[in-house]
Amino acid sequence: MKLAIYGYGNLGRGVEAAILKNPDMELFGVYTRRDPSAVRSETGAKVYAAKDILRFKDEIDAVVLCGGSATDLPALTPMLAKDFNVIDSFDTHANIPAHFDAVDASAKASGKLALISCGWDPGMFSLNRLYANAILPDGTDYTFWGRGVSQGHSDAIRRIPGVLDARQYTVPIETALEAVRAGKAPKLSAREKHLRECYVVAAPDADKTSIEQAIKTMPNYFADYDTTVTFISAEEMREKHAALPHGGFVIRTGKTGLHDEHTHRIEYSLKLDSNPEFTAGVLVAFARAIGRMAARGETGCRTVFDIAPADLSPLSREEQRRTML
Amino acid sequence: MKLAIYGYGNLGRGVEAAILKNPDMELFGVYTRRDPSAVRSETGAKVYAAKDILRFKDEIDAVVLCGGSATDLPALTPMLAKDFNVIDSFDTHANIPAHFDAVDASAKASGKLALISCGWDPGMFSLNRLYANAILPDGTDYTFWGRGVSQGHSDAIRRIPGVLDARQYTVPIETALEAVRAGKAPKLSAREKHLRECYVVAAPDADKTSIEQAIKTMPNYFADYDTTVTFISAEEMREKHAALPHGGFVIRTGKTGLHDEHTHRIEYSLKLDSNPEFTAGVLVAFARAIGRMAARGETGCRTVFDIAPADLSPLSREEQRRTML
Repeated sequence: MKLAIYGYGNLGRGVEAAILKNPDMELFGVYTRRDPSAVRSETGAKVYAAKDILRFKDEIDAVVLCGGSATDLPALTPMLAKDFNVIDSFDTHANIPAHFDAVDASAKASGKLALISCGWDPGMFSLNRLYANAILPDGTDYTFWGRGVSQGHSDAIRRIPGVLDARQYTVPIETALEAVRAGKAPKLSAREKHLRECYVVAAPDADKTSIEQAIKTMPNYFADYDTTVTFISAEEMREKHAALPHGGFVIRTGKTGLHDEHTHRIEYSLKLDSNPEFTAGVLVAFARAIGRMAARGETGCRTVFDIAPADLSPLSREEQRRTML
Repeated sequence: MKLAIYGYGNLGRGVEAAILKNPDMELFGVYTRRDPSAVRSETGAKVYAAKDILRFKDEIDAVVLCGGSATDLPALTPMLAKDFNVIDSFDTHANIPAHFDAVDASAKASGKLALISCGWDPGMFSLNRLYANAILPDGTDYTFWGRGVSQGHSDAIRRIPGVLDARQYTVPIETALEAVRAGKAPKLSAREKHLRECYVVAAPDADKTSIEQAIKTMPNYFADYDTTVTFISAEEMREKHAALPHGGFVIRTGKTGLHDEHTHRIEYSLKLDSNPEFTAGVLVAFARAIGRMAARGETGCRTVFDIAPADLSPLSREEQRRTML
């Protein structure tokens, strides 16, 4: 199966590396909105101008979109679904229904197949929420994120005047995790679930007190959390905060029995050294499913909920039953 | 959706309780091979003779088989698939391919839909093995069971002369779990992964030393494990070992990156107060999917790998995307 990478940042490079781990997958090319002659791929794969992608319409089995959810994907995924099977990792949860409708309309009109919001959250965490809710209908579930770097929160800090660089770690609060695991079904505010740790490189002449204040009072991003701000040098940022680790927990506890006498706990957790490389692994596995489903004539938009797990595996269904069931 | 329970032991009673937690599900009746007049259901549901089930062919949407894997299900599931949509929890891993073929042939011939090997292992653990393998192809996975009661091992002890009752707990070895979680991908023998704790009620005149010896040297069941045997009174057995807790862990660690520079861990764990009631929760959720898929005209045999998660949820696909993705 021939995949194209559209957008060549951290996620795009992750997909490039993930394709090498899947012998049935081939990287057809990297498509960039920068000048392609100025972009060199990590593996020597060909780099093309994004605007030229239609020329390769008949050679690409699926396009993996590696742009951002804020402005890129809402326009790009419906556009590319006019000519290609597409898969994206759109992760603005509140806007998923609108994005789904736009991509579905485009893919149905063109007879192509699309998958949106694929990664780990939305993605594997969503799947675990759905499975656990179906199995334990009388229960409560919780999603915790971290410890890991939130790109959105890091970007928000960088937009404050006087900030040269910033890294924000989302940290789940251990006592809250333990209360959830114990089946206590606690009511937890945002502040009770996560801490926010910020590392900031300030300009030499910046007022650190006002930067710290601006971070801690920023609505939506930080005001509702206990937030720590630590100023560090650009050198320390490079040395200690270059990686993009992440992870988290989906936990559901619930009751069964005629008198609710039994409690059960389902827990799914991820511990990731590299958020973009793991997300890329999920994207490539689901791209395999999209290729197979498109070959069976399916069209329109799908999410991870619509994909039979068997379609993700390179093994035949017989081998899956024999070795993994 | 109207479900029938076929076989009314611990699992059958679990399904009866689980149906009450799912407002879109209805218990049509309990089918037993005992004298139905001697069996009273927990909820007042009607109890019928198993041999009469064909009379209700047009009223039952799916039959949930709650018999044993050793002798019941290999015969019953293919037989009932001639007239009903069926779902079982067949759990003899080595015989799954043969069981699948027998049920598939029967259900294809009758135009019915069947699901086999549904529960938590095989079942939810299998799904997690498959997802994790697809996402992290360069990795290693491990399944640990327990701490929990193994019915098969308890039964094996009960067959030893002089044993009146027995309960066997499978216990995962914490140091092995930690080595796996640390991404060390250790090679682990059976003995290094699990301990076996046995509680035995012996007949007054029994030779305890020879019972202990018979347990510890029993091939397949105990000889390859570190096994402890504790003799207790019938009263202590009733008081402390009446419950059927279980659970376990599926952990996969794997590498990504062009130079394998990043390690990731995916962990799924269950902690269950009641093994049969949790298994029943899984069966009822998948019965919902089988009902929907049968209504779409699907026939033949399926496993959990073939079921799109969306079909498990009582919510519409729109609601799933809005609330769980």
